[in-house]
Amino acid sequence: MQIEVTDCHDFARGAALLGGGGGGDPYIGRLLLQQALTRSGPAHVVSVDDLEDDALVAVIGGIGAPTVTVEKIIGLAEGERALRKLEARLGRRVNALISPEIGGINALYPVAIAAHLGLPVVDGDGMGRAFPELQMVSFNIFGQRLAPMVLGDENGDTVIVESNDNQRMEKLARPVVVSMGGSTIAALCPMTGSAVKTCAIRDTLSLAIGIGRSIGTARLGHEEPFDALFRYLRGTEYYRHCKVLFDGKVIDIQRETLRGWTVGHATFEALAGGERLTITFRNEFLRAQREGRTVAIVPDLITVLDRETAEPITTENLKYGQRVKVVGASVPPIMRSERALAVWGPEAFGFDEPFLPIEQVPAHVE
Amino acid sequence: MQIEVTDCHDFARGAALLGGGGGGDPYIGRLLLQQALTRSGPAHVVSVDDLEDDALVAVIGGIGAPTVTVEKIIGLAEGERALRKLEARLGRRVNALISPEIGGINALYPVAIAAHLGLPVVDGDGMGRAFPELQMVSFNIFGQRLAPMVLGDENGDTVIVESNDNQRMEKLARPVVVSMGGSTIAALCPMTGSAVKTCAIRDTLSLAIGIGRSIGTARLGHEEPFDALFRYLRGTEYYRHCKVLFDGKVIDIQRETLRGWTVGHATFEALAGGERLTITFRNEFLRAQREGRTVAIVPDLITVLDRETAEPITTENLKYGQRVKVVGASVPPIMRSERALAVWGPEAFGFDEPFLPIEQVPAHVE
Repeated sequence: MQIEVTDCHDFARGAALLGGGGGGDPYIGRLLLQQALTRSGPAHVVSVDDLEDDALVAVIGGIGAPTVTVEKIIGLAEGERALRKLEARLGRRVNALISPEIGGINALYPVAIAAHLGLPVVDGDGMGRAFPELQMVSFNIFGQRLAPMVLGDENGDTVIVESNDNQRMEKLARPVVVSMGGSTIAALCPMTGSAVKTCAIRDTLSLAIGIGRSIGTARLGHEEPFDALFRYLRGTEYYRHCKVLFDGKVIDIQRETLRGWTVGHATFEALAGGERLTITFRNEFLRAQREGRTVAIVPDLITVLDRETAEPITTENLKYGQRVKVVGASVPPIMRSERALAVWGPEAFGFDEPFLPIEQVPAHVE
Repeated sequence: MQIEVTDCHDFARGAALLGGGGGGDPYIGRLLLQQALTRSGPAHVVSVDDLEDDALVAVIGGIGAPTVTVEKIIGLAEGERALRKLEARLGRRVNALISPEIGGINALYPVAIAAHLGLPVVDGDGMGRAFPELQMVSFNIFGQRLAPMVLGDENGDTVIVESNDNQRMEKLARPVVVSMGGSTIAALCPMTGSAVKTCAIRDTLSLAIGIGRSIGTARLGHEEPFDALFRYLRGTEYYRHCKVLFDGKVIDIQRETLRGWTVGHATFEALAGGERLTITFRNEFLRAQREGRTVAIVPDLITVLDRETAEPITTENLKYGQRVKVVGASVPPIMRSERALAVWGPEAFGFDEPFLPIEQVPAHVE
């Protein structure tokens, strides 16, 4: 499979939806990808099963606060430097790249840099969506070592972080991101092709493009885009339980850039007034509560879409008065295992409630 | 020259004085050095002139807040790991170690680890005293690159920081120190023997031992220790302009551990009441003001000593009611050059006043 310039709009839209509010402004990511593909030609996508078992695969992507990425545009040079430094540390060249998360800019960036460097990019990622912390990747859940991790910024500075404890990797790297301006590029988690076969959330590049295309095609054909989106999602193994959690407008946003993240709450009210939904976010939308009762919670996907066009809206782009539909969707079983929930379930975000699969939320609560 | 177990008390006392309130509790450093010398035998000290021009010399020492070093005791294993990682990065073994600063624990730690590893330690350092930031070293002033720098903590984690900009090295490394618990070990600034000959503040290990011994010997001989100290200082090329700036007691301390430093103010009052002196500190004592007029300022040395025994008191050990003499001393000409003042003069610390050499303070201000 190849990703071409003409795929960029759909890909960016799908990645923004899978970002669940996080992962950074898809507009920025799309411009970056369009430029890279225009200059270097299409990106070659390799499916997980087609990887050589002894291939060396590295994760590459941005790390930081989405609010910052809007102003501090990332480039390909930072990523290339970080990757070269990782290769120097390993004494070996990388054979393929993989995205840490299929949400937002981090879905697009690895494709852009893969095209730029003439490397294949794996059809898959480490989150199946986006999450705000480094250790919240399937690679960690399956015991892969995230170190060595190279952070590289636009000044040419690099920081290499190494720990056997993936949670400490996050703790050591995050403040460096802040020093580097709140958002930067990281190359990390070198692993073999066979490790990728065990660890990756598969086929998610294809999924993102498919999601984006279902909405885009519906608009062109004057079909209701939400109908097309739900039909597409229900036909995949991913996100098959999907529904509108709320239909209304943004009436309040509390948002700040704190310790390298974008954190806050957004409140929505029905168009006719009355009922309210509140979403808590840290880069990503983490929990949606309707009148104080949880209707969706991590790792299930919560996403906010323009109620006419179904265009996804990221946390840093939420504005007072926007008319939206809040959509919830189930994540695939690999992301709901006990081991997985320990890493990215409600407790990992400090919520004092267990995971409630979106399809099991009682109808009267909705 | 060798440093033996019997030198430890004098060495620690002299290093504490040269620390100017910073550099960490000399008690901790002394215990560490005593243990290392007891286990491994005396440390071999090499004078700057005796270094081979092509020898590889590395800086090793602690970085962080002195308030933390009292509770989070540093060990030799962290330093050994950091040094080995630096050597792996360089592809070459180090031939000698040098201290970043002759003040406090960082005077003693390189000697301890040199003895432990069987390496010589250079009679000299990079500050001629102690300063709170990484780029405030003579190696930087003479254009030496501080990178690569390896930070290593007690968990076995390492972070390698690389920048061509020594000021950014500080900015990138400091928050990592905070993540590593507020105090950790760094190996950095690999340089040749000939670079050390250009950059180092020379003979400062000998100076620290000489200072400590002058006070210790005076006590044994029932001499006034301040007289012995001043006589010794006036006989060296360093700190020859020295005097008591204030004689009194501690009446107020504002002190907090902030972003990896110990920062605050201490106020002293004459024993009979009345006149006051206030010292501003960030790890080290930076400026002393008597009734609002500056009587000593960086880089000149300000140090607080017990008024009976002349034992130095570090910022984290200052307590209400302590009876002290505040001593000021001139730093050597190499540390007062225009280039040097740009790095560690009053403006580098945010003071809105020029450097005033201690020997030029008008008598009526004192």
